Amino acid sequence: MTPSDEVRLLGERAKAASRVLCGLRTEVKNAALQAMAAALEAHQGEILWENEADLAAARDAGLTGAMLKRLGLSESKLAGMAAGLRQVAELPDPVGSVVDGWSRPNGLEIRRVRVPLGVIGIIYESRPNVTADAAGLCLKSGNAVILRGGTEAIRSNRAVARVLSGSATAAGIPDGAIQLVQSTDRQTATALMQARDYVDCLIPRGGPGLLQAMRDQAEVPFIVDGAGVCHTYVDAAADLDMAVEVAFNAKVQYPAVCNALETLLVHRDVALAYLPRIVGKLIAAGCEVRGCPTTCALAPDARPATDEDWDTEYNDLILSIRVVDGLDEALDHIARHGTLHSEAIITRDREAARRFVREVDAAAVYINASTRFTDGERFGFGAEIGISTQKLHARGPLGLPELTCVKFVIEGDGQIVGG
Amino acid sequence: MTPSDEVRLLGERAKAASRVLCGLRTEVKNAALQAMAAALEAHQGEILWENEADLAAARDAGLTGAMLKRLGLSESKLAGMAAGLRQVAELPDPVGSVVDGWSRPNGLEIRRVRVPLGVIGIIYESRPNVTADAAGLCLKSGNAVILRGGTEAIRSNRAVARVLSGSATAAGIPDGAIQLVQSTDRQTATALMQARDYVDCLIPRGGPGLLQAMRDQAEVPFIVDGAGVCHTYVDAAADLDMAVEVAFNAKVQYPAVCNALETLLVHRDVALAYLPRIVGKLIAAGCEVRGCPTTCALAPDARPATDEDWDTEYNDLILSIRVVDGLDEALDHIARHGTLHSEAIITRDREAARRFVREVDAAAVYINASTRFTDGERFGFGAEIGISTQKLHARGPLGLPELTCVKFVIEGDGQIVGG
Repeated sequence: MTPSDEVRLLGERAKAASRVLCGLRTEVKNAALQAMAAALEAHQGEILWENEADLAAARDAGLTGAMLKRLGLSESKLAGMAAGLRQVAELPDPVGSVVDGWSRPNGLEIRRVRVPLGVIGIIYESRPNVTADAAGLCLKSGNAVILRGGTEAIRSNRAVARVLSGSATAAGIPDGAIQLVQSTDRQTATALMQARDYVDCLIPRGGPGLLQAMRDQAEVPFIVDGAGVCHTYVDAAADLDMAVEVAFNAKVQYPAVCNALETLLVHRDVALAYLPRIVGKLIAAGCEVRGCPTTCALAPDARPATDEDWDTEYNDLILSIRVVDGLDEALDHIARHGTLHSEAIITRDREAARRFVREVDAAAVYINASTRFTDGERFGFGAEIGISTQKLHARGPLGLPELTCVKFVIEGDGQIVGG
Repeated sequence: MTPSDEVRLLGERAKAASRVLCGLRTEVKNAALQAMAAALEAHQGEILWENEADLAAARDAGLTGAMLKRLGLSESKLAGMAAGLRQVAELPDPVGSVVDGWSRPNGLEIRRVRVPLGVIGIIYESRPNVTADAAGLCLKSGNAVILRGGTEAIRSNRAVARVLSGSATAAGIPDGAIQLVQSTDRQTATALMQARDYVDCLIPRGGPGLLQAMRDQAEVPFIVDGAGVCHTYVDAAADLDMAVEVAFNAKVQYPAVCNALETLLVHRDVALAYLPRIVGKLIAAGCEVRGCPTTCALAPDARPATDEDWDTEYNDLILSIRVVDGLDEALDHIARHGTLHSEAIITRDREAARRFVREVDAAAVYINASTRFTDGERFGFGAEIGISTQKLHARGPLGLPELTCVKFVIEGDGQIVGG
């Protein structure tokens, strides 16, 4: 079987399943999600056994601590995956919601109705918990899903997918609703990226290499879950105590994520009062600070930043700091170096806040709060499948409604176009 | 200047303009649209002069009647373009509308606000009126636009773009809001398709060749304005008088457009009563009919259809007809041959209508009406920049709201993430 043969078979099954899934009642989908959660728990021995095999192979291949940690499952991680599925069962079903509707002068009745996208492909790397999260969100939103995980997690992913699709089918979900790509070679990923006849939307979850491959090869539309070089701008009118707490939180509380702070911009007028405080607190927390010349002069613990620093997503306990002449320079810096993810201003000045919100181009713009809130759970969506840093279709945390599209339904009694 | 140099210069100017445009008041944009309409009328001599030169060159190059007609401008076409701009001025401004908003338990206030996409690129072919339509819709929605028209219309497009951008700038719109790519070579189009740093969204308006080039080369996200192989299914429970009128209208009233009927599916039980009537009426109107064997047997004026016919967008007075055993077969046919555009069922059977609406995957699904209504004007949107046949971002007619995206605005008083 060639890579494209496998993808075509999966795609045909998924397409067929999606025609049934789109009309499935919410109660059927919810019961299936509950059954899937129970099955994960019932089969935890088998799943952990396969995960152990993946971990052993990964250790042999010399994988590092952080990667092993992402790859590893445990009773408590499986319980978390099951809880996630149960939580998705509790969320409102976006399918069938009428976005708007109106009548035309000729009597035509037009409604815009939320419907599933159809078939969603997820390309992800080493975390096997994505298999369950993605399957749950896609099922609840009425989509068939084709999962393509990484080589290192293939035995874990196969076990999880087998348990999920088996229990879903037993609960009345059509065959082909949840499928895993069995081959982990690059050719199969490429075939999936080009399967326009079968896949309606791809969501890549991985690093810059995967995104570039998508841009180069994908023919299927996709949603970019990209880098987060997030900024916080401490304005001249900032409450400096708040600015210390918020910037520290945005950088230090969990630096490995895309909504963490990477570059702090500080208004020249408050640099002397602010920089020694925040830099001292960061250094005490083990965070490396890289600064512009003014920053280094005011906070000697900071090392000089290079041009490259302003475009780097550290995902680590490193922060770059730049002193700016004012809001204009801060806005210019963000326009040049931001990645359309999350940007914050700390200020008591109403006009500065309004201009920042208006002119900063990002999925989430904050006034006086930590960028770390950009997250489906923290926004109150309940669950997310990623965070979009593109503008088309969906921006920011991707919840259930973002896995749907709309359909115009037009009812008439014989209307024809005149003229 | 290389193709990418030109695109970079245009892109930098557009990006800079978009930072001002996004905050521009509706009244400023509306006044500019009125000024642009007046300028088109005031400069009609100059525009028609340049259009004459394009037409002469096209005649020399051997262009045919339909293409010359699309290329040609006239006083009345210019008046139509001006009226279009005035109509856009009357439409509601989508920018700034709050899609939804809520508070979190920690006091964070979250709003989802409609904002412009930023910079929109339009790649279009020989119709110079698109220059004015696209410029007006992009301006009203707060976007900078980079227009890339076809070689045949370059002198007309330059004249129209010069008049529009000059009058817009005089009315307070920033330089760079409306720009035309001056080179018409393929390399420049490719550079535009790949200008990810400057262009937020591309809207190609052209044939399958342009779409394939986009799929192969574009790195900028784009909205597919694709083919329309639209079906109408005449159910066993159809009102046959209505079915004759609606199908005839959908095919004959204006066959050159994407929402025209291309394939008629007829339930076997009504084929004998229906086919001779509709085929006779179509033939009398000069329409060629190509049918399946049953169709040809019942309506001898029909020629046999080939497999290729079921996937052909004729855009002409040709209709293919197929007799089906029932709704299942009709749904299968549409799933295999439809292009996600517009599909209709003619029936009095409530269950058949419900199933058709639920299971047919298309931007617009009709019960008892002509597919020709899929159009921004006819839906009541006032104006459209195309009709999307993709699922991500927007589906169906693209009006002003579809030229925007959302931004989360989060206001707090120092909230940080705990845990």
